[in-house]
Amino acid sequence: MNYTFSDRIAGMKPSAIREILKNTSDPSIIPFAAGNPAPEAFPVEAVRRITDEILSEHPIAALQYSITEGYPALKERVRALAAEVSAVGPDDELIITSGAQQGIELACKVLCNEGDTVICEDPSFIGSLNSFRSTGAKLAGVPMDEDGMKLDVLEDALKNGSNVRLIYVIPNFQNPSGRTTSAEKRRAIYELAKKYGVMILEDDPYGRLRFSGQDIPTIKSLDNDGIVIYCGSFSKILSPGLRVGYVIARSPIIAKITVAKQCEDVHTTILSQMIAERFLAETDMAAHFNKLREIYRHKSSLMLSAMEEHFSHDIRWTKPEGGLFLWCTLPHGSDMPEYCRRAIANKVAVVPGIAFNPDETAPSDCFRMNYSTPTDEQIVRGVEILGKTDF
Amino acid sequence: MNYTFSDRIAGMKPSAIREILKNTSDPSIIPFAAGNPAPEAFPVEAVRRITDEILSEHPIAALQYSITEGYPALKERVRALAAEVSAVGPDDELIITSGAQQGIELACKVLCNEGDTVICEDPSFIGSLNSFRSTGAKLAGVPMDEDGMKLDVLEDALKNGSNVRLIYVIPNFQNPSGRTTSAEKRRAIYELAKKYGVMILEDDPYGRLRFSGQDIPTIKSLDNDGIVIYCGSFSKILSPGLRVGYVIARSPIIAKITVAKQCEDVHTTILSQMIAERFLAETDMAAHFNKLREIYRHKSSLMLSAMEEHFSHDIRWTKPEGGLFLWCTLPHGSDMPEYCRRAIANKVAVVPGIAFNPDETAPSDCFRMNYSTPTDEQIVRGVEILGKTDF
Repeated sequence: MNYTFSDRIAGMKPSAIREILKNTSDPSIIPFAAGNPAPEAFPVEAVRRITDEILSEHPIAALQYSITEGYPALKERVRALAAEVSAVGPDDELIITSGAQQGIELACKVLCNEGDTVICEDPSFIGSLNSFRSTGAKLAGVPMDEDGMKLDVLEDALKNGSNVRLIYVIPNFQNPSGRTTSAEKRRAIYELAKKYGVMILEDDPYGRLRFSGQDIPTIKSLDNDGIVIYCGSFSKILSPGLRVGYVIARSPIIAKITVAKQCEDVHTTILSQMIAERFLAETDMAAHFNKLREIYRHKSSLMLSAMEEHFSHDIRWTKPEGGLFLWCTLPHGSDMPEYCRRAIANKVAVVPGIAFNPDETAPSDCFRMNYSTPTDEQIVRGVEILGKTDF
Repeated sequence: MNYTFSDRIAGMKPSAIREILKNTSDPSIIPFAAGNPAPEAFPVEAVRRITDEILSEHPIAALQYSITEGYPALKERVRALAAEVSAVGPDDELIITSGAQQGIELACKVLCNEGDTVICEDPSFIGSLNSFRSTGAKLAGVPMDEDGMKLDVLEDALKNGSNVRLIYVIPNFQNPSGRTTSAEKRRAIYELAKKYGVMILEDDPYGRLRFSGQDIPTIKSLDNDGIVIYCGSFSKILSPGLRVGYVIARSPIIAKITVAKQCEDVHTTILSQMIAERFLAETDMAAHFNKLREIYRHKSSLMLSAMEEHFSHDIRWTKPEGGLFLWCTLPHGSDMPEYCRRAIANKVAVVPGIAFNPDETAPSDCFRMNYSTPTDEQIVRGVEILGKTDF
């Protein structure tokens, strides 16, 4: 049988990163292409003990159907966590989602008709871009300076885009670029969104992983007008495999996201939610965040100093103040895809920058590197190999 | 701010059942409205032990990111399980989903453009109907006889519907009606689908819960043409809270569902998948299914004999051979919504039949009753109360 698929899905391909990762399950390949938290960042002992307690004390609650909105006790704890970064106000509601990925997809699904426009940073996180595409939305990319989107291009996109409904931003240690949007630009983006009556989708999975510089207020903290949808995640601070994230926004938005989530998966795995709740309840989270920051401060420094030593100075790269990624730019006109193929042949996987282009046909001189997944030894060896790879 | 939402979501309301359930968390209300597996059906001890083993032996694998396709070891075991009911052929692929709900939603999303038609049984499972609506599909309901859809109406809908893409069927112990589609009708539905070039979405969450009569081959077992998408679930045989289901179809279909799933939640909670895998590995599943059948045979008999004793014989009801539900019809012209309101006032919750109408504006004389959630005592008392409730 010849199958025909819906317009929104027919042209879509699996995420380039996840395809690269499937092909590099070969342990001899150094994994600079992934985005996995470091294994040493998982609180394994605590999760094992907590899970056993939950399944001893509340087995039926942990295994039975639950409500779409999320486990009430977890919602309370997430509210407190989000309050620490002023990402929740008294008028805001909250829903637990199956990872932030689901929150991002649902926000777009409830707001955008097919053909409506989502403005995003260029480059941006491929998982989110594909989510937007899967709902039938069109993407308009706005190039970035080191401190965030170019505001004149953003205003132009807001003014001239067709049915612009959302501005998607990852303000802290952006994936893939590692860049952080400055306080001034956050405010300017907020004011522009307000001026043009467009909502902001603020994606903040890495906010707690700042290992240098000063915290910058979330865009959500400016939200007196109810125009910001904030997505958070347990993937980088507890475990991605549990698939627990959350969305914070005004209640009419959360009500529609709830209806749409019910249609997708009824509710998020309740055992995962109970584990996350008890972990927040019993952990000194400030100390836990410090431990995570220490891990990533060390790994990023190791990678950056190895790059300083081994990379040609014709290659430029970002110096992130947190998060998991940095972004390299080959001299203009280099054959970046060929460079990435050579790297793989030399047993180092990086992600070609094209994967993160809102416009899939645009060329790129860039590639993304990750320092959270590889071991220290792999970081040093991998950078050395990349330094010897021709571009 | 006045929010506007996408056309596909703007008109949608939360599932009537889940709203009823939220309002009836009051433990004094007898829960005939739910669809929860009986608490005694959960293998609590096994899950606790298995989970502890997984988190002791493979903690990082259980907490780290995983692949969208699903945990390979679980896929192998599900393939063997599905083979027992001839629901998987050598040309079929398989994906693990976050409950069957996600599989149903994804099947529709990848096949239907907005405005395309899904044919379904009338009445049918509200969760699936809402999933179809959330992708922008239109519904065409086909009334049922005791042995399944009326074939002449089905052919008419296939012939005259606009862009019919899917026929959605729950052949075993249908939700909400408790009816089972006969072998003859399964074959006839298959042949009609083939004749009109339309795919079948076969939803089979209750197939293993037959407590009387003989098993009937799945529609998928007839699928020489690659036109059947089969959805299965662990919700009724292990735990719904873990959110693990699966979809079986030809590989081009599964490939598109994989891409679309990646956009929704990256992958299904890996800890849940590992628990399901180890449970299948170490359990005598035939004995486990027998135990579940015994539980539901007992509960359904108890409810049916109490109804026989207390219900007016002007009310008709189905006598399911398995599953969790039965379906009552008041005399034509009764005020069914008022009856359900009186029942709630008397502390018994049932679901008004309107909830299951593909056409949300159509009237209904029916309501759904569930015997898996209430205790034996609640079954007897609840039926007695309903028997005294005026209609």
